[in-house]
Amino acid sequence: MADETGIEALIDLMARLPGLGPRSARRAALLLLKKRGQLMVPLAQAMAEVALTARDCQTCGNIGTADTCTICADPRRATGEICVVEDVADLWAMERAGAFRGRYHVLGGTLSALDAVGPDELRIPRLVARVAEEGVREVILALNATVDGQTTAHYIADVLAASGVQLTSLAQGVPVGGELDYLDDGTIGAALKARRQF
Amino acid sequence: MADETGIEALIDLMARLPGLGPRSARRAALLLLKKRGQLMVPLAQAMAEVALTARDCQTCGNIGTADTCTICADPRRATGEICVVEDVADLWAMERAGAFRGRYHVLGGTLSALDAVGPDELRIPRLVARVAEEGVREVILALNATVDGQTTAHYIADVLAASGVQLTSLAQGVPVGGELDYLDDGTIGAALKARRQF
Repeated sequence: MADETGIEALIDLMARLPGLGPRSARRAALLLLKKRGQLMVPLAQAMAEVALTARDCQTCGNIGTADTCTICADPRRATGEICVVEDVADLWAMERAGAFRGRYHVLGGTLSALDAVGPDELRIPRLVARVAEEGVREVILALNATVDGQTTAHYIADVLAASGVQLTSLAQGVPVGGELDYLDDGTIGAALKARRQF
Repeated sequence: MADETGIEALIDLMARLPGLGPRSARRAALLLLKKRGQLMVPLAQAMAEVALTARDCQTCGNIGTADTCTICADPRRATGEICVVEDVADLWAMERAGAFRGRYHVLGGTLSALDAVGPDELRIPRLVARVAEEGVREVILALNATVDGQTTAHYIADVLAASGVQLTSLAQGVPVGGELDYLDDGTIGAALKARRQF
């Protein structure tokens, strides 16, 4: 092992990143040690800076550098549509697709009886308040197609039923470029059920 | 994508670490953003500190926090044996095994005509000087069993031939716990050639 406590501590911290185990953390630390000026110093500075400036958007739960994130602060984004996602990673995926021009609401997880995650842990009360305050016409439930994700979607639909807002969810079907032979039975079944006029 | 330039820059830097692609760099950055106090700040501090203190050992090329690394500075390590490795990662691997109590010499790579890496790029002159200065009896060539590694080993053996030092290399054979069925032909051939009295 690296005999120096500082280097050891660095490797231990790196190993806590997703995608890096103890072995790849050592490799990554060694690359950092070799590229001290080009990579380690800029990375340390970027982390220190982001750690200082990053904060959760008070409106939607997205991570940004101000109390209101760039999406919520952008007047060109439609205010009548809110896309509900589980996590900031899902928001980033939606933005990469570039197909949605409304606003988001990041729940911060899914309801889970096992992990004792209830509605109050999930920014669901904030969503209900936003629907009332912002004159929202449509809530798009873009939760993951997992059991927990769908349970959470049904719960939100129940809570918002009285508000009269239109509730939609992402279409299920064959992925673009997907081959039937490689698709699971559930997806094929869902795509068949939702078939459209050609 | 993350709309904030600081977060984008962090993701770009993370993606340059080995083992992290663009996708896993985003995941890692997101975890850092969520664990700002527990992980991002300590990691930034560890990197900044190590970037300041880390330096190459003037004797053996190991990375440490002083001009002489802890191994070279340790009077309990035998001075008569030098284990030559390609890289600091190999030195760490040898130290984890805990089987060697002598000193090291880190070449910093292998000879490579394609990449224009010659002996002077590799701390080979420093090795020759150490053999003369430190009264070395044995040089263990622990280079990787690749073409470049073995070319480099042969080159070092030629250079040190005149010094009269004993040259050895790591044994080749079946890995401990290894199964013949999963081994390549070259290893089985080498193990058979080097067979010992049972």
